Amino acid sequence: MIGRGYAPAYLFTKEKGMEKITPRTLSGFMELMPERQVLFDAMVEKLRESFSLYGFTPLDTPVIESAEILLAKAGGETEKQIYRFNKGDSDLCLRFDLTVPLAKYVALHGGELTFPFRRYQIGKVYRGERAQRGRFREFYQADIDIIGDGALGIINEAEIPSIIYRCFHTLGLERFVIRINNRKVLNGLFQILGIGDKAADVMRTIDKIDKIGQEKVFDLLTGETGIPAAAVHHIIDIITCRKNGVDPFDKLGAFRGRNETFDIGLGELSTVVKYMASFGVPASHYEVDLTIARGLDYYTGTVYETTMSDHPEIGSICSGGRYDNLAEYYTDRKLPGVGISIGLTRLFFILEDKGYLNGDILAAPADVLILPMTEELGPAVELATAMRGEGLRVQIYSENKKFKSKVAYADKLKIPFVIFLGEDEIKEGLVTVKNMASGEQTTASPAMITTAVKAKLAEARNGAPIKEPAV
Amino acid sequence: MIGRGYAPAYLFTKEKGMEKITPRTLSGFMELMPERQVLFDAMVEKLRESFSLYGFTPLDTPVIESAEILLAKAGGETEKQIYRFNKGDSDLCLRFDLTVPLAKYVALHGGELTFPFRRYQIGKVYRGERAQRGRFREFYQADIDIIGDGALGIINEAEIPSIIYRCFHTLGLERFVIRINNRKVLNGLFQILGIGDKAADVMRTIDKIDKIGQEKVFDLLTGETGIPAAAVHHIIDIITCRKNGVDPFDKLGAFRGRNETFDIGLGELSTVVKYMASFGVPASHYEVDLTIARGLDYYTGTVYETTMSDHPEIGSICSGGRYDNLAEYYTDRKLPGVGISIGLTRLFFILEDKGYLNGDILAAPADVLILPMTEELGPAVELATAMRGEGLRVQIYSENKKFKSKVAYADKLKIPFVIFLGEDEIKEGLVTVKNMASGEQTTASPAMITTAVKAKLAEARNGAPIKEPAV
Repeated sequence: MIGRGYAPAYLFTKEKGMEKITPRTLSGFMELMPERQVLFDAMVEKLRESFSLYGFTPLDTPVIESAEILLAKAGGETEKQIYRFNKGDSDLCLRFDLTVPLAKYVALHGGELTFPFRRYQIGKVYRGERAQRGRFREFYQADIDIIGDGALGIINEAEIPSIIYRCFHTLGLERFVIRINNRKVLNGLFQILGIGDKAADVMRTIDKIDKIGQEKVFDLLTGETGIPAAAVHHIIDIITCRKNGVDPFDKLGAFRGRNETFDIGLGELSTVVKYMASFGVPASHYEVDLTIARGLDYYTGTVYETTMSDHPEIGSICSGGRYDNLAEYYTDRKLPGVGISIGLTRLFFILEDKGYLNGDILAAPADVLILPMTEELGPAVELATAMRGEGLRVQIYSENKKFKSKVAYADKLKIPFVIFLGEDEIKEGLVTVKNMASGEQTTASPAMITTAVKAKLAEARNGAPIKEPAV
Repeated sequence: MIGRGYAPAYLFTKEKGMEKITPRTLSGFMELMPERQVLFDAMVEKLRESFSLYGFTPLDTPVIESAEILLAKAGGETEKQIYRFNKGDSDLCLRFDLTVPLAKYVALHGGELTFPFRRYQIGKVYRGERAQRGRFREFYQADIDIIGDGALGIINEAEIPSIIYRCFHTLGLERFVIRINNRKVLNGLFQILGIGDKAADVMRTIDKIDKIGQEKVFDLLTGETGIPAAAVHHIIDIITCRKNGVDPFDKLGAFRGRNETFDIGLGELSTVVKYMASFGVPASHYEVDLTIARGLDYYTGTVYETTMSDHPEIGSICSGGRYDNLAEYYTDRKLPGVGISIGLTRLFFILEDKGYLNGDILAAPADVLILPMTEELGPAVELATAMRGEGLRVQIYSENKKFKSKVAYADKLKIPFVIFLGEDEIKEGLVTVKNMASGEQTTASPAMITTAVKAKLAEARNGAPIKEPAV
């Protein structure tokens, strides 16, 4: 049995007089009203389209994985946030990101995959964070990764910003900047400055410079981390050079030839930037920013962040980078890759909160509402069937209500066209349609009406889910 | 921070020499290889399109709900199957269907919704069933429901079979039959035959007639249920009349005027059938089948099952029916509705198992693979960017491999077109494309190649995910 019928019968056999249970949705779980859901789905669809243009294949992995797999070596704050439970003898977890399941997938099925393996995945992940406004315990991530078998060409790192650009551009966002850096450049630089042994700590601290400011970074590095003030001044002077009107490549050029890692990193960064225009990213939409370090140790090359120009305070809306070893917990096979993530649920929340959602997009559940004016519904049904055959989304409204309520139904749902089908129209083989936006009413043959409605809708459907507010 | 960067660092800082963890996916959890995933996604997309044509709005609800909400009154076998766990102080469950979350949603947000409320939802649900081949613990359901506020016109019940028809037809399945019945007809009939007090038991038993056969049904009804043999003979004679070449309406006509419920039910059944042709369902694809009772008590009117003509042994692949009260656990508001479900994961498994998947559908991750023959990749990148701008899905292959391996990459992934871009072509502003299926090679301007490739692909893309094997 594949259909419905498996739901527990008790749910529908409630005894009379029983206490009602107050319906509620868990806090930290987004549940949208229909119009908003349409916008959210439109965003997902635009991302799918964008990822597909770059040759990524869709993937879907289980939400539940064995704890052993998901927590290969867990501990601390992260594990506390994870939804973990037993079912029978099994120790299970809900996935907390899409990267670990990808690592498992590639390690498990690697023999059947063709490399470089490009996949996208858009799915829900779970983190039991402290509930607060704009933070979600269940949220969609949209990820892409390119995984090489042993090696992966630098052109893939250069391609990623163009995917980021196309994604947001297609969504309707224009005022954003992709910020690029390379961890080898920073690591090499720290080695040149004699603080290579503290590179990871320094990286984590300077990554926070946007949030906590230069002074606090200075205090942390000279204090906790124990780096001489002169070196810290030097580092901050270099990484913030763009702010002082100095091109990062000019600033970095002075260090060339002194450290191999640095030279490789600088070469990679130059290559990435060099191909940016060919990949179609406007110069206005990217910049090399040496303060972008990414907190995580596993990035080994190019790193990316994306900032909304109007709202830098939100932080990055799309980040990622190059890593050397995707799945070392599961396999000896060396699988370097590059990938990015968008936290879609939080992004959607922010877009709504800041007034960036396009309220003009066609979010109605139907294009046409047919109001039969006769008891016999055959003609209305036939008309609906014919229009659906032409790709129109049609509802028949036959509830026993007053005429005004029927029209109000279309109004509330913002259905753009209403067709009145009375005895006269049926006799004459005609149809009367009302354009709900203009109020205009037209009577013509069903075929002509269908063509006219389709043309009107084609215009309305071109909208993007994001519409930036005027500056 | 909305992007990646939140994954636990420990996953990528494994010490050398540590034991590997054997990657595995939990049993009962479907995880598809890329080509199969494309087919699965195509099925989901076709269902979305079909549902949308009937004016259903997409909905997405949390996978996790409070146990109190999900198990309004639980017990027995069902509760054992449910994934239930604590997180902090919260008693939580994973949803086991999409109907209970819908009931909650409508009860919670009913004030903001417009009725009749038509929604579809395609999402994962969880049941910890005993693991066996073809049974899944995590699986997709595709549901539609139409919810009325206090009342709901019969035309909605008549529309459902046309949605079922369109769904499977669009998926590429043709050899199937929608079987329709009405619970009021059965209930009324049982009252007329003097066994009205045992209607629920009789219903549950005759619903199994396809599986266990007439004799076993006879034994159960005369035995356990305690119904006189004569009455059971009578019931079986009526409900199986079609097998004996008797039209169910003729058979039922004799009972008209003897019981109100029966008469109402017969009227509803006639109306549903009457509109079937107007709704575009061919006579070959539906039948009134009085043995369809559905096991669940909550159905109160029309009920539906859908059977693959080649594989009746599989049972129904799409079922549902009319119910009177969707959300009585949560609200006093009377919310009658009608809905159906498709168990998508199991259906996909069966289609694959029985050889019904269309292997000819374009499942490659890209339409075009560009093989740059020069070290400078600018021209290849520009070509890719231009082709993507025209909607083509393009990959650039720049790994350091032998020519043969590069072409093998396209072969393995079944990418239909490969472009070789060497120095000569770049100089002359030309492009050489190879049609991988025919082996044909063409050299022309990028614009002409793009147009030609798009035309070829438009043909290939028209495939449906299901392709029935020859009989």
